[in-house]
Amino acid sequence: MPQPHSGVASVKVKRWDGDSASFSHAQDAVAVESPLEIRVGEESLATTMRTPGHDDELVAGLLWAEGVLSAAADLVAVQVICNESPTLQGGGYVATANVSNIANIKSFERAKRGTLTSAACGVCGRGAIDDLIEALTPVAQVKFPSALSLSQLPSLLSSHQDVFAKTGGLHASALVNEDGAVLVAREDVGRHNAVDKVVGRMVLDHAMPLQNTTLVVSGRTSFEIVQKAIRAGIGVVVGVSAPSSLAVELAEAFGVLLLGFARKGSFNAYTQLHRLSE
Amino acid sequence: MPQPHSGVASVKVKRWDGDSASFSHAQDAVAVESPLEIRVGEESLATTMRTPGHDDELVAGLLWAEGVLSAAADLVAVQVICNESPTLQGGGYVATANVSNIANIKSFERAKRGTLTSAACGVCGRGAIDDLIEALTPVAQVKFPSALSLSQLPSLLSSHQDVFAKTGGLHASALVNEDGAVLVAREDVGRHNAVDKVVGRMVLDHAMPLQNTTLVVSGRTSFEIVQKAIRAGIGVVVGVSAPSSLAVELAEAFGVLLLGFARKGSFNAYTQLHRLSE
Repeated sequence: MPQPHSGVASVKVKRWDGDSASFSHAQDAVAVESPLEIRVGEESLATTMRTPGHDDELVAGLLWAEGVLSAAADLVAVQVICNESPTLQGGGYVATANVSNIANIKSFERAKRGTLTSAACGVCGRGAIDDLIEALTPVAQVKFPSALSLSQLPSLLSSHQDVFAKTGGLHASALVNEDGAVLVAREDVGRHNAVDKVVGRMVLDHAMPLQNTTLVVSGRTSFEIVQKAIRAGIGVVVGVSAPSSLAVELAEAFGVLLLGFARKGSFNAYTQLHRLSE
Repeated sequence: MPQPHSGVASVKVKRWDGDSASFSHAQDAVAVESPLEIRVGEESLATTMRTPGHDDELVAGLLWAEGVLSAAADLVAVQVICNESPTLQGGGYVATANVSNIANIKSFERAKRGTLTSAACGVCGRGAIDDLIEALTPVAQVKFPSALSLSQLPSLLSSHQDVFAKTGGLHASALVNEDGAVLVAREDVGRHNAVDKVVGRMVLDHAMPLQNTTLVVSGRTSFEIVQKAIRAGIGVVVGVSAPSSLAVELAEAFGVLLLGFARKGSFNAYTQLHRLSE
């Protein structure tokens, strides 16, 4: 451990069983977390902790969410290399994006200069937060899928959670079209990364914006998830768990239907209630 | 909504019940997420999304984790004010720390300059990650609590999760002493914030380092959680859910006992297996 390029690492554990009040030895699978440095041309933009795999999608999706990229064709290529021998941190993986036209120099500078925080915040810097919101436009007001079809999406997501099934340690995200078909599903230790990978796949496929699609996420829904969805043009976000107050406010303001606690065929709708029908 | 200074906001929802295939109207409680700008003296260090409440602890814990603060007495005061009228983002809350002696100028500059990432990564910047690890020293090799007492900690944490019980949307963290008594327990939309608040309380109480204590966390255990624990001198981390590969590696390297899947009286131990006894 770590096993580069793999989403799962095998580790020895001692398992305490409460019923028998005794230890046993076992092997367990844990989700891989390791850093990836992201560069645009010569410039280092950010380093993110992520689960290895689909790094090109992660980069494409992150650049799209940040507003650095506004046309899929402007992303010429993403090259991922390992600069160093593996270390405790998992080796010096660097992804370099070749971008022919940076959509918004301000976005690029902001992405580069944002301040560090040790919290679970991916939108660090108050200026950055305001800028991110200012750059958003309301999503297209298309017809929502039926309540019944929306209620079936969480089980569809589960069927795509390969690594989660093994480790219990990964967030998952899936993009679903208006016929209820999964276009792409990805897993990552970071829930935001899983969303970036899903959107990034569509950027690489030149399929932006993502009208008439629904984003399904395995965890809690925070500001960042909704921001990424709006930026990608996604009109419906379905969370298996709870949304935050700011996720609700942002979704309402930009015309996104936000569902939470989508489990066992039921859900709560938090926004756009007037547009929702059976 | 939002209700400043409150951890919970009340929102209208439409609830879809899968069994009756119909909607009903209801009120639901969501966890508040809003930005806090953190300044050290005149300089803006970071802005973090957090759940309002215990902001002074959040700042103290974050500064400790980042290495900006290495002696509790150097934190003279933390003042939290609201600069603006509330906006979509929840108002311009600013916490200013008065620090008499910055332990490590390099840490301060790193914390200030770290690059932005939209992922769930709080340790952004490859340089920052290496620096964070370089700044750590192994925790004191004290005797671990018994397996039986460790197995009872998750239920102890649950009993302190007030807002989670209402919203399902908050992470929780608790610090427990060698007698199994909870010293402090905090909740936040960010799991890292919950840990920063717990450690920050102890910084404000001049109780650092935290030898002979155990940190219990409600969610998954990632690199950052273990880094914060080691930095605070905490020797045992108990996670209710799965650890990441990097969390396991870091804990092993610095002498921390890391437990995962601590539920219903059972758990997996991932590190320090030779030091663990019944």
